[in-house]
Amino acid sequence: METSLKHTLYLLLEDQEGRDPRARWVRAFLVVLILLNVLAVIVETMEDVSQTYRHLFRSFEYFSVAIFTVEYAARLWVCSQCQSNGGGLGGRIRHALSPLMIVDLLAIIPFYIPFLLPVDLIFLRAIRLMRLLRVLKLGRYSDAVQVFFTVVRLKKEQLAVAGFGLAILLIIASSLMYYFEHEAQPAIFGSIPHAMWWAIITLTTVGYGDAYPVTGMGRFLASVIALLGIGMFALPAGILSAGFVEYGHMKEKEDEPSDSCPGDD
Amino acid sequence: METSLKHTLYLLLEDQEGRDPRARWVRAFLVVLILLNVLAVIVETMEDVSQTYRHLFRSFEYFSVAIFTVEYAARLWVCSQCQSNGGGLGGRIRHALSPLMIVDLLAIIPFYIPFLLPVDLIFLRAIRLMRLLRVLKLGRYSDAVQVFFTVVRLKKEQLAVAGFGLAILLIIASSLMYYFEHEAQPAIFGSIPHAMWWAIITLTTVGYGDAYPVTGMGRFLASVIALLGIGMFALPAGILSAGFVEYGHMKEKEDEPSDSCPGDD
Amino acid sequence: METSLKHTLYLLLEDQEGRDPRARWVRAFLVVLILLNVLAVIVETMEDVSQTYRHLFRSFEYFSVAIFTVEYAARLWVCSQCQSNGGGLGGRIRHALSPLMIVDLLAIIPFYIPFLLPVDLIFLRAIRLMRLLRVLKLGRYSDAVQVFFTVVRLKKEQLAVAGFGLAILLIIASSLMYYFEHEAQPAIFGSIPHAMWWAIITLTTVGYGDAYPVTGMGRFLASVIALLGIGMFALPAGILSAGFVEYGHMKEKEDEPSDSCPGDD
Amino acid sequence: METSLKHTLYLLLEDQEGRDPRARWVRAFLVVLILLNVLAVIVETMEDVSQTYRHLFRSFEYFSVAIFTVEYAARLWVCSQCQSNGGGLGGRIRHALSPLMIVDLLAIIPFYIPFLLPVDLIFLRAIRLMRLLRVLKLGRYSDAVQVFFTVVRLKKEQLAVAGFGLAILLIIASSLMYYFEHEAQPAIFGSIPHAMWWAIITLTTVGYGDAYPVTGMGRFLASVIALLGIGMFALPAGILSAGFVEYGHMKEKEDEPSDSCPGDD
Repeated sequence: METSLKHTLYLLLEDQEGRDPRARWVRAFLVVLILLNVLAVIVETMEDVSQTYRHLFRSFEYFSVAIFTVEYAARLWVCSQCQSNGGGLGGRIRHALSPLMIVDLLAIIPFYIPFLLPVDLIFLRAIRLMRLLRVLKLGRYSDAVQVFFTVVRLKKEQLAVAGFGLAILLIIASSLMYYFEHEAQPAIFGSIPHAMWWAIITLTTVGYGDAYPVTGMGRFLASVIALLGIGMFALPAGILSAGFVEYGHMKEKEDEPSDSCPGDD
Repeated sequence: METSLKHTLYLLLEDQEGRDPRARWVRAFLVVLILLNVLAVIVETMEDVSQTYRHLFRSFEYFSVAIFTVEYAARLWVCSQCQSNGGGLGGRIRHALSPLMIVDLLAIIPFYIPFLLPVDLIFLRAIRLMRLLRVLKLGRYSDAVQVFFTVVRLKKEQLAVAGFGLAILLIIASSLMYYFEHEAQPAIFGSIPHAMWWAIITLTTVGYGDAYPVTGMGRFLASVIALLGIGMFALPAGILSAGFVEYGHMKEKEDEPSDSCPGDD
Repeated sequence: METSLKHTLYLLLEDQEGRDPRARWVRAFLVVLILLNVLAVIVETMEDVSQTYRHLFRSFEYFSVAIFTVEYAARLWVCSQCQSNGGGLGGRIRHALSPLMIVDLLAIIPFYIPFLLPVDLIFLRAIRLMRLLRVLKLGRYSDAVQVFFTVVRLKKEQLAVAGFGLAILLIIASSLMYYFEHEAQPAIFGSIPHAMWWAIITLTTVGYGDAYPVTGMGRFLASVIALLGIGMFALPAGILSAGFVEYGHMKEKEDEPSDSCPGDD
Repeated sequence: METSLKHTLYLLLEDQEGRDPRARWVRAFLVVLILLNVLAVIVETMEDVSQTYRHLFRSFEYFSVAIFTVEYAARLWVCSQCQSNGGGLGGRIRHALSPLMIVDLLAIIPFYIPFLLPVDLIFLRAIRLMRLLRVLKLGRYSDAVQVFFTVVRLKKEQLAVAGFGLAILLIIASSLMYYFEHEAQPAIFGSIPHAMWWAIITLTTVGYGDAYPVTGMGRFLASVIALLGIGMFALPAGILSAGFVEYGHMKEKEDEPSDSCPGDD
């Protein structure tokens, strides 16, 4: 409990137990601001809109970066309030490198780059889109996200094997299809990487219709691949089902609350 | 047990235990009438049919609204027969605001709007389609519907995170695709909202084929998105599987019947 | 044990315990014959092949019908050997009405219809395709088929609700899409039944690309529908997963063999 | 422990317990070499690249085959070090016929065929693609692959029935569609095998859009087939879910390590 302001800020921004009722309003304000930011970046790419409201978009960007910068600085400052972080510079650096703080940094840094480095126009446009990374800041506000990381970690080997099987299937399917079709349709199946585009769009059952076989053998192969595509959906669904069932059993057993600092998991 | 007619109506319309054998006939009649209404609205949009049988459709509409209005009034009247509803005006209003009663009201109200308010032709057509909401009246006749609400409520956080992940994926995919393709195909990927149409149709593996990338980087990105689309199916399937398995365990334990009033859950 | 021939035939055709080693050969011969029949019907629709080998196809058809007729008669004759069937005419008729015997009858009856009734050419072609029903005869040779019926029966209410939800979604989606698009694309979204074709092809994520919205509101609606299409896959997958898990638990408990007559379940 | 070199090679190549730290480097080198080989075959089909770097590709191929041949010979030589293999020629032949050793042989044999047999150009191109089979060598490095074989073996009957149901559905759907559409679209639905291409692409929800019905009855049938396609995804997903859940229970019980020789399972 160092200073009063610092403690108040800690309660407003980082306190998990919600001891300050105003913390909910801060949280709601930040979530709405993030959503408006994402909306702004999306709408700004519609040229007629961005021309008309050019100044509004610019002002809103300045306003948002100001808020997010203050928020980032405040979080960095108050982090020593949380017991699980060691004090001193070491604890502060460790906190700054936690995933949530890096996301917060990524949310503001694109704004400052053009002031620090000379950038050309194309890179500038890429930077403007990087502002969309602000959406990741929302991850801070959901506890359920970690369920997914737990389930994926539980089943990471099986998922990796399923991914490996998918990769082998893609390679074999696209090389066979290249062999069967590249004389009939040299523009579409001109090389294995070309055929791989077809293979992915078929195995994932998207099927745009810009590339499909026309020879008998090609169609037979495509049929087999499309049927195996069913397995490509059923396999991860089955693995994740078992993972979520196991997670349910695990959660029943351990129910003591964890008291780690937010942003450190 | 106030009046005899009221009690008979209660047994015919609302009694869950089926003490009156005629209740099954009332139920069957109402279900068939609802299905015929839905069919009528659908068929009425085929212009040659609606011209030929104009009078038949109008008469059937008058007949249906009459029946449904009587049914609504009767349900409102007899609701005091059910013990779980408090008596008096308070209980009656509480019953009128239950989901099933609101659906019943929505089923008849579009018919009366043109008599109460001046409406133009476009709104009239919208009102005509609103009659399709009558299909929701069927929800009353299935006890299994609540299984889904229970399972979704059990897993609502995980489903929300999956939805949130989907939203982030859509935003990132469409902004990247806009970046890669909007010079090659300005008509199709002219802004992020345009690219979002492509992203949704790809992630859900629908793949109409009206929008797909043609550049190398765009195709690489589309491949990654299509593969992640598999996860977008496997994740909710896994969550719901675990939910239905848990529901099965829950149901084994608690088996005492609930005696709440129909329409109040 | 009436006559020796009858008992031998029973051992060859119907005996589940495989006491006669020749029964495996009879079974293999019948399975191959069924598969060749299916192949013949399929290949016969390719006009150049059917012209060239016209006599071969006809001879094979006569040969197959002869075998299947003898098989049907034999099964009907020997059914009294199985204890679980009551003797006499009653038991025989009950056996003839069992699903497997009806399938066997359907496999041969299309051949005899033209001899019994005057048929025109179009009906004759339909009859020729009905020979494909012979493929259902294969069902006799798999014990695992009943697993599916058990699982579906376990979960029939939930599956019915999922189907009901799908139907409501289809009706609402297609009527809204008709409302939004039928002025922009009167040929494709000219009536609700037309829009329903689009809705089914979208909700099932097939996405041929012959019908898709072009207006802003239409695309927004299609996006929502496509996303709900994910649920339409996840829901039955989740229900069936829980069903198969429950079936696994059930099977662990009851393990005594059933001694019913084949074809009676 | 016969010779020192033989034992060292055994520790480097086959030892599961990782007693030699250099084994990890050998393993990493081989995995990278396999991945580069796959990449080389894929890139070689892009004509402009293969023309420019013709000598590089050839040198890399010679180098890879040399390494893989030495690896194969070494594995065959050291296999007697593993206790679970019987000694002598019998054990050696048994080892050579294990799946992993056959894959290793398939990875090098395409290179030697043109030296042993006279081959024409088309067969030569097929042989070049056969080099892609080297990717299967990676299977040696993943223990999780056997999980899938176990789960599939657990549920092989149910999966077979699902596959059988799919086959029957395909046959019935394509013959009905042939019946309804072959007059309206003789080029696309000209025979049952043609209609089968449509049926597979629809049932797997790929939906290229090169073949779809245009008649009323055809569209109705396609709608039914597309809806059944949902079941075709839900069924294997449900079966595999139950399989993975059962596998999780099985694994909890048995946890003693197996000491079989690598490549013999």
